[in-house]
Amino acid sequence: MAQFWTLIGFISMTAGALFFGYKASSANSERWRILLMLNFFIATIASVLYLVILTGQGEGIYNDHNSHWVRYVTWFLSTPLLLLVLSHLGRTRLSTIGGLLGANALMLATGFLADVYPKPHNITWYFISCGAYVGVACILLSSYRAEAERNHPGKVGKDAFQRLLTVHLVLWTIYPIVWILADTGIDAISDGVEAMLYTILDVTSKVGFGLLSISTMKKLEKFPAWAEKDEVVSSMPTPTTHPDFGNPGLEQVSGRGTL
Amino acid sequence: MAQFWTLIGFISMTAGALFFGYKASSANSERWRILLMLNFFIATIASVLYLVILTGQGEGIYNDHNSHWVRYVTWFLSTPLLLLVLSHLGRTRLSTIGGLLGANALMLATGFLADVYPKPHNITWYFISCGAYVGVACILLSSYRAEAERNHPGKVGKDAFQRLLTVHLVLWTIYPIVWILADTGIDAISDGVEAMLYTILDVTSKVGFGLLSISTMKKLEKFPAWAEKDEVVSSMPTPTTHPDFGNPGLEQVSGRGTL
Amino acid sequence: MAQFWTLIGFISMTAGALFFGYKASSANSERWRILLMLNFFIATIASVLYLVILTGQGEGIYNDHNSHWVRYVTWFLSTPLLLLVLSHLGRTRLSTIGGLLGANALMLATGFLADVYPKPHNITWYFISCGAYVGVACILLSSYRAEAERNHPGKVGKDAFQRLLTVHLVLWTIYPIVWILADTGIDAISDGVEAMLYTILDVTSKVGFGLLSISTMKKLEKFPAWAEKDEVVSSMPTPTTHPDFGNPGLEQVSGRGTL
Repeated sequence: MAQFWTLIGFISMTAGALFFGYKASSANSERWRILLMLNFFIATIASVLYLVILTGQGEGIYNDHNSHWVRYVTWFLSTPLLLLVLSHLGRTRLSTIGGLLGANALMLATGFLADVYPKPHNITWYFISCGAYVGVACILLSSYRAEAERNHPGKVGKDAFQRLLTVHLVLWTIYPIVWILADTGIDAISDGVEAMLYTILDVTSKVGFGLLSISTMKKLEKFPAWAEKDEVVSSMPTPTTHPDFGNPGLEQVSGRGTL
Repeated sequence: MAQFWTLIGFISMTAGALFFGYKASSANSERWRILLMLNFFIATIASVLYLVILTGQGEGIYNDHNSHWVRYVTWFLSTPLLLLVLSHLGRTRLSTIGGLLGANALMLATGFLADVYPKPHNITWYFISCGAYVGVACILLSSYRAEAERNHPGKVGKDAFQRLLTVHLVLWTIYPIVWILADTGIDAISDGVEAMLYTILDVTSKVGFGLLSISTMKKLEKFPAWAEKDEVVSSMPTPTTHPDFGNPGLEQVSGRGTL
Repeated sequence: MAQFWTLIGFISMTAGALFFGYKASSANSERWRILLMLNFFIATIASVLYLVILTGQGEGIYNDHNSHWVRYVTWFLSTPLLLLVLSHLGRTRLSTIGGLLGANALMLATGFLADVYPKPHNITWYFISCGAYVGVACILLSSYRAEAERNHPGKVGKDAFQRLLTVHLVLWTIYPIVWILADTGIDAISDGVEAMLYTILDVTSKVGFGLLSISTMKKLEKFPAWAEKDEVVSSMPTPTTHPDFGNPGLEQVSGRGTL
């Protein structure tokens, strides 16, 4: 059964990667290309993960417990890209992006320690990892949301980021619950159910969330954004008094030649 | 014989590192310093690699096959820098740089899996890795070339990037051919010949390519570039209608204080 | 005794992390948030390190020598952040930051090789690692200092960076001395003394240096900086003739929407 769900995961992720890759290659603005390329690499990394698991590699016995350590390797690579998707949509400023990526890396590193550590210390690491996740969630609900709504004022922006954050946080919160129910924790569910739940979560939070990010971008594009265009900015009354609000998006960093 | 070629590789890379390091320390513009520093670190990383191999470390037996895994570690570090050299010369935009670095990382990660995987799955990874390389090549020949030529219009720019891309792609294409001929693949060449071919390829594609990047930069500098200077940009008729062409180079990201 | 000092290290780093984290969450400018967040993650990474050592993990026997390899993992993550603290304070330009981070990574990678290599080659790597450290120190004392003083002219800037660099270089120079005195080198001090010295060094160079960076930022804020504000820059007589002086700090890269 675990094998079946891994195959489903591989097929879904590959299909998602092909879809996002095709869209990225035909995107007609830098902002869309970045969004689609991030989603392409998220799905591709997950696709490689499922192929590794499918061919029976990427696991090992540590302290009497069989760990799929390869999951952590790919999560370590794909979750920063997911947070960059959120940051790109919200035009998040650098310190908030840094805080999100740092807390996320801490969450995964300590989650990995919880997986491979001997008992009873593994539970210590589990709670530290959950603490780091609470940090990610707090930054998303405070700084991230405030900046995203400021950069996309009005009901459309508010609703778009409300939905994005709700979906994101619900999905990410289920991961540590599966973790503690599986043999990594209290061993209440079988390996097959664990594989099924992780696959459904992965496909939803990667391919599904990618589709949601595309529909969010489309909605946001129809309305003017606070910091979206240089002409908008130049009409702001006192720009220099808000020296650190707003980030016009990743593409602007490299698009300076066109000012 | 393998030992001899490794020694040749070590000496060449060290000489290259010293040359690029000396040039970098005496460079008089940020654009030159970045180019030379990238080349310095590319040669230095390779120099460390050859010293590790020379002292008999960095290899191990995985699935009945002796893998020089340390090669992948150093390729993982030096190839992104090589792509940054290309991006720096071409003033490539962020989404294209991201696509290149992502496809390159995928190529090396799956190439490493092809090296250490048990048969027959190693061949699957080899073809996936080749697919990622085709992705790198496609981005270079489409987006990268289009942006580089747009940023450096005229025959000089066109010829410079034509030569740069030809040399780069010919060299990088030989790597997977050596890989498949060596004991990683069909075992048609001896370890000594493999070491010789990798050393010649490495020195040419690192030190040689570095020298080519310097001569290309010199040529490009003599001609005005589309997005090179702020005064050029300010005279563009409709800058805001091309919101994502051109990147004035890495140095500009941090050079904002001088606007 | 080693255990006792590790516990001291864990408590100090956790206290430091809580302090910097609290300050970061209440910072009211992007420049301060970045500084405090960098210090928060530096202390947090070290805190995780000490908890790993405290629970008896993160070490292994390589070539008849017990290596705390986990130290290198955390140094690899925290030292770049320390250099970013320095760069953020000094508004260092990109090529200098790249040189610092590259030489630092080389220093740690070869230092790790010196730790796990069989004799006699470990001494070769030790000297290569020291050479990379000399590279870091040279960049700090030449390009870094010149740019920091140019961006913060006057006696206050000069004194601030003089003190910062002196403290930084003295602390970092003691590390390789402890390394060579401990069982990684000539084995002149016991494991307990080694743990004590590393703990004192770590707490001083992370929490202590973080406090120094805060007081330096406060001092620098009171005086106008060359490249600090856009209005200052616009009054510069010939800005385009200094195309690569000055970096208004990391926050500016993402703060473009407010121009």
